[in-house]
Amino acid sequence: MRDSGQLWRKMTLCSMGLLAILLGSSCTPLRGTGDLGVVVERADGSLQVLENSHNSLLASVPGLGDLSHATALFSRDGRYAYICGRDGGLSKVDLLTYQVVNRVIQSGNSIGGAISQDGRWLAVANYTPGGVRIFDTETLEMKLDLPAMGADGKLSKVVGLEDAPGQAFVFSLFEAGEIWMVDVSDIAQAKVHKWTNAGAQPYDGLVTPDGHYYVAGLFGEDGMTLLDLWNPEKGIRRILQGYGRGQEKLPVYKMPHLEGWAVAGTQIFLPAVGHHEVIVADMQTWKEVAHIPVHSQPVFAMARPDGRQVWVNFAHPDNDTIQVIDVPSLKVIKQFRPGKGVMHMEFTPKGEEVWISLRDENRVEVYRTDNFSRVATLPAKSPSGIFFSSRAHKIGL
Amino acid sequence: MRDSGQLWRKMTLCSMGLLAILLGSSCTPLRGTGDLGVVVERADGSLQVLENSHNSLLASVPGLGDLSHATALFSRDGRYAYICGRDGGLSKVDLLTYQVVNRVIQSGNSIGGAISQDGRWLAVANYTPGGVRIFDTETLEMKLDLPAMGADGKLSKVVGLEDAPGQAFVFSLFEAGEIWMVDVSDIAQAKVHKWTNAGAQPYDGLVTPDGHYYVAGLFGEDGMTLLDLWNPEKGIRRILQGYGRGQEKLPVYKMPHLEGWAVAGTQIFLPAVGHHEVIVADMQTWKEVAHIPVHSQPVFAMARPDGRQVWVNFAHPDNDTIQVIDVPSLKVIKQFRPGKGVMHMEFTPKGEEVWISLRDENRVEVYRTDNFSRVATLPAKSPSGIFFSSRAHKIGL
Repeated sequence: MRDSGQLWRKMTLCSMGLLAILLGSSCTPLRGTGDLGVVVERADGSLQVLENSHNSLLASVPGLGDLSHATALFSRDGRYAYICGRDGGLSKVDLLTYQVVNRVIQSGNSIGGAISQDGRWLAVANYTPGGVRIFDTETLEMKLDLPAMGADGKLSKVVGLEDAPGQAFVFSLFEAGEIWMVDVSDIAQAKVHKWTNAGAQPYDGLVTPDGHYYVAGLFGEDGMTLLDLWNPEKGIRRILQGYGRGQEKLPVYKMPHLEGWAVAGTQIFLPAVGHHEVIVADMQTWKEVAHIPVHSQPVFAMARPDGRQVWVNFAHPDNDTIQVIDVPSLKVIKQFRPGKGVMHMEFTPKGEEVWISLRDENRVEVYRTDNFSRVATLPAKSPSGIFFSSRAHKIGL
Repeated sequence: MRDSGQLWRKMTLCSMGLLAILLGSSCTPLRGTGDLGVVVERADGSLQVLENSHNSLLASVPGLGDLSHATALFSRDGRYAYICGRDGGLSKVDLLTYQVVNRVIQSGNSIGGAISQDGRWLAVANYTPGGVRIFDTETLEMKLDLPAMGADGKLSKVVGLEDAPGQAFVFSLFEAGEIWMVDVSDIAQAKVHKWTNAGAQPYDGLVTPDGHYYVAGLFGEDGMTLLDLWNPEKGIRRILQGYGRGQEKLPVYKMPHLEGWAVAGTQIFLPAVGHHEVIVADMQTWKEVAHIPVHSQPVFAMARPDGRQVWVNFAHPDNDTIQVIDVPSLKVIKQFRPGKGVMHMEFTPKGEEVWISLRDENRVEVYRTDNFSRVATLPAKSPSGIFFSSRAHKIGL
């Protein structure tokens, strides 16, 4: 009986071990994914997974390579974040288990990406070699390789890559000054439309939230280029030419971003390049209706989801400051200094709060947007981009 | 050793049983919630949980009471659906485990609901007794009871309950002809603003997707009432008075719905009451800019998320037909008959597909919105409303 007693103890331990394994690892607690998001920790090549219902950080996910410029995209079910890094790495991160479930090095240097209307395809814009590569969102298998060979016979850096209705991706060629649109309804026979002479050095682009227009910002000239995606046969046209006219153009310390568009009602708010201004254009005429003097060179001008406020951050050395524009009056109603290195702002889906990354303070802060009070401070290592899974359901993000 | 051999076999069986239990019941497979939704099966008082990435039904959830008129709302994390039924039942359904996790009978007869901007509060509009009750979305504990006692000294039926930025709910009193707004920033000291003389018999309402305006449709007169939520101190005003002028008003077989608003660019598309028309108004002037003749009395006029199409269904006996309006040309570009009893339409978040419930055919169908081809047919018992979890992130839904 001594033998069976020992065996009993061994078996009990074995069962308890099994139980611990099953409870501990297999049974990740269930949760919804609609309030999840990520903070990019650029210095460490890691992500913090966050939830914005109670404003907390859930876990750190390391091993994502060079994230000195990184964009996050989301699967249509909200479970996976796709991270495009500066080293050309494309990583698929499970926001429920906090694991990197797939990772490919897809080019030498990527700048951003977009996911198709139906969620099946993920396009990445690359600097080196210049072009767009399109992947299956399930497997990260490459399905299409589009070298950005412009009419100048050279490969251009690709910028301003966005998704648009009709299973399309639209993007710009920096050196060649072209805008391309690729229709991936049938990925095996993808059609590419090209518009040449699209302006000097397009540096970023946006698709309006209704998917109607693509706007490319130009670095080589004061102006922007417009493509009407509902009527692409009408071609492109230059808009807002000579904005900032009569002002000396300042050295540009950081390129503004356009993707964090600010569309409010019929107006679009655009950061000017080399001027301390936010330009306001009417989206029916595409004429400038106002330019709002701001604190310094704007980087992001982002509308609160209801379009009643536009939040603006600035280039170095004024990247400690945020200004808030009241849309009805087109006036700055709030200026504050959350801290050094304000890199990004992300609004909750209905806009009651905004998350702000403070790279040089190693923290992320959450503010109410109605009374500008701070509601949370969270630690993060050199945080840059903040992205919420609700982006999965928005056109042009 | 025989003893220990038997013990070993017993223990093995025991461990395997434990394993089966743990794998089978505790470990519900992980999944994202961004592509989930529900179909209301009105005859059976049940829901079908669906996913719209691959267009399938996942499970049936019974026991939800009288769903002859039911609305679904979603928690901000997308995990839970809240179902307001005709019997006054308010049920919280876990879309991951397919369980009713909480259910209260909160009144005699409810007509709809809304969730606050921050996701904490759920308001239900009741016919009997007429009023609004507000619940904690976590616990379904009632936090506020607002009987709809109008200036006429009587309880009114409450209709057109919507959420708005600033932690507000807005709704209308049918008999009293009033619009109320309640601010639940501090639920213990909620403030109610009332506008009387808001028109004869408001029957439904909508909040524009930017949260700027509340529009109440009137049954007792040809016209609507507008409240500017950004400037509530300016009061209400009547708009679109006398639409359908010179036409004989037809008997109304089914009240149109307004909540499935159709805002496209600067235009809003509204189903006319008692006329075979969709009214188009400009949201800057709130004047009628067009009225589009349609097949029959419209019930829903819903914009595809990009605002380029408006889909319309119709009252009995023409509820077998759908028309699609092209927004740029304001013309009907497609008419088709999916089957008997078209009750509801729900677009995927980026609009590439639409789900349609066919009550009298006991099925749900999914169509592509670009070429109108049918991509899926799914069985459901007397399906009525279809609601996707992406509604959690939209203002006014």
